[in-house]
Amino acid sequence: MTSPDTSRVDAYAAHEPGASLTSFDYEPDVLGPHDVEIEITHCGICHSDLHLIDNDWQSSAYPLVPGHEIVGTIAQRGALITHVDVGERVGVGWQCGSCLQCEWCERGDENLCASIAETCVGRPGGFADRIRVDGRFAFAIPDALSSELAAPLLCGGITVYSPLQQHARPQSRVGVIGIGGLGHLAIRFARAMGCEVTAFSSTAAKEEEARAHGAHHFVSSIDDTALKGQRESLDLVISTVNSPLNWNRYVSALRPNGVLSFVGALAEPVTIHTGMLMARRRSVTSSPIGGRSTMREMLDFAARHTIGAQVETLPMSEVNAALDRLRRNDVRYRFVLRRD
Amino acid sequence: MTSPDTSRVDAYAAHEPGASLTSFDYEPDVLGPHDVEIEITHCGICHSDLHLIDNDWQSSAYPLVPGHEIVGTIAQRGALITHVDVGERVGVGWQCGSCLQCEWCERGDENLCASIAETCVGRPGGFADRIRVDGRFAFAIPDALSSELAAPLLCGGITVYSPLQQHARPQSRVGVIGIGGLGHLAIRFARAMGCEVTAFSSTAAKEEEARAHGAHHFVSSIDDTALKGQRESLDLVISTVNSPLNWNRYVSALRPNGVLSFVGALAEPVTIHTGMLMARRRSVTSSPIGGRSTMREMLDFAARHTIGAQVETLPMSEVNAALDRLRRNDVRYRFVLRRD
Repeated sequence: MTSPDTSRVDAYAAHEPGASLTSFDYEPDVLGPHDVEIEITHCGICHSDLHLIDNDWQSSAYPLVPGHEIVGTIAQRGALITHVDVGERVGVGWQCGSCLQCEWCERGDENLCASIAETCVGRPGGFADRIRVDGRFAFAIPDALSSELAAPLLCGGITVYSPLQQHARPQSRVGVIGIGGLGHLAIRFARAMGCEVTAFSSTAAKEEEARAHGAHHFVSSIDDTALKGQRESLDLVISTVNSPLNWNRYVSALRPNGVLSFVGALAEPVTIHTGMLMARRRSVTSSPIGGRSTMREMLDFAARHTIGAQVETLPMSEVNAALDRLRRNDVRYRFVLRRD
Repeated sequence: MTSPDTSRVDAYAAHEPGASLTSFDYEPDVLGPHDVEIEITHCGICHSDLHLIDNDWQSSAYPLVPGHEIVGTIAQRGALITHVDVGERVGVGWQCGSCLQCEWCERGDENLCASIAETCVGRPGGFADRIRVDGRFAFAIPDALSSELAAPLLCGGITVYSPLQQHARPQSRVGVIGIGGLGHLAIRFARAMGCEVTAFSSTAAKEEEARAHGAHHFVSSIDDTALKGQRESLDLVISTVNSPLNWNRYVSALRPNGVLSFVGALAEPVTIHTGMLMARRRSVTSSPIGGRSTMREMLDFAARHTIGAQVETLPMSEVNAALDRLRRNDVRYRFVLRRD
């Protein structure tokens, strides 16, 4: 066995837009003083990985190694990395770097930095045996969280935790639209925070699942009469879906000072009546992942409440089967790839 | 002269939608224990008065006495009113009542109460010699503010002060769209709060005025190239206009955590790309007037900085001339009617 410093990384890559992944190896960058090398044990699959494979955002370069919900152990660390040890279990999410000196970085909002580096955009991601990344964006995983639980938290979890951290109090009434990978985590977090939780889904059959995740109430997301009945009942609504709904009904569902946060990527813009915002001082917003302190806080909170995604774990060698099923929405609720 | 308790109120009223106002007198309600009777000296004219006269909101009842930027002196007070004395100068704005026992009232957000009473909706307003209203919504006017300065603050002022109070810090970069009755007050308040202020107007000729009110910068609100140049430059943008603009340009003009607040009434909904909200954790919001503590705070702040509207004062007998000119936007920037 060659030393980890010089051996090539074994990965899975798409070689053109929309292609199946095939084995691919590459020479890793020299380990810099702030870098760590992580021996990957698990990597979650996020819808963003499909978008990258398909070049939906016109940002993809091929060969493209997806994967940005990475859990593994530190194999090497650069001279300036002291907060994680070799052998320690860590996670890396969507963000793997920022300038660390702008006002947003200095405030702990590294996710708002204009110079954000993204784990599998322009650099190889976590569908691989190893990865070298800036160790300042590697987070110790609390012992109480299994690696399967932890992996999807690193992107899916932080995405829904952030709006809850920003806008919810334990006393809040929180609505979650869409009971999928993001939505079921939002329900679990909101419930653990002490909130009253209403799940919205277009699939009536998901009521039982939604309640099992912690929802107190279930409402059809497309039944106009049911939505009208929710008028002025919620302090925060988190939309995790990527297809259009009657958004003004959800604005109406907000109580005074209520917030509608779109964390699901919508292709179409939303059309909002400002008079409905004015009457009750409501807001419409969104947020991208979360900063480093928010990531640490989320992992602590998830560990305290044993919150993670409901996952289906497959060997990393079956990545294409997982991606195919994800394209068909055939997963409850997140895939995690495991290196055997 | 009859005692004020029994004499009829002399007012100006519209007798049908869109009509000119004519003299109208009415028997005032019995003065309740929480009421005050105000001998009106000044009343501002707000665009809302035109909307009410024209029944634009399908809420008007005729004869309709407009006027909700009222300044005068206490002529009588109910047994339970102790915070203002007979002879004291007070103001009344758009709101003249609320339940005072819901969670919003208890928090000082009476403007968000579901049972808000409005000064000239369903009851006679301030284009009159007197008015009887709930004294708990009558605010002492600081000595430093003339009645002409104070009157437009009671609706126009509080409307733009509220989003500044909610979202601006002295360090904020604030944009104000529209240099009219609301906009020039927003510029004056933001400048006095220590903010860096950018005025947006479709009228290039307003640059000099905007700078005189306190704007540091002036940008065309309709020049797409100029708007693109404002990208990620502002923390708060307050729109006071009621015609559509390229709103996504203004969203782009927001820095991370930035807020776009619509206080101008827009007939058409706004269409927003949620991806632009997400990338920088931006929000779109609005707010209605302000609660009682906000009103008092605004009047104190305005007095400290001698902030009021730039007004044109006319005798109340010339109300129809003023309304006609307001319909043509022929005023810099607010009319105040004075009882001679």
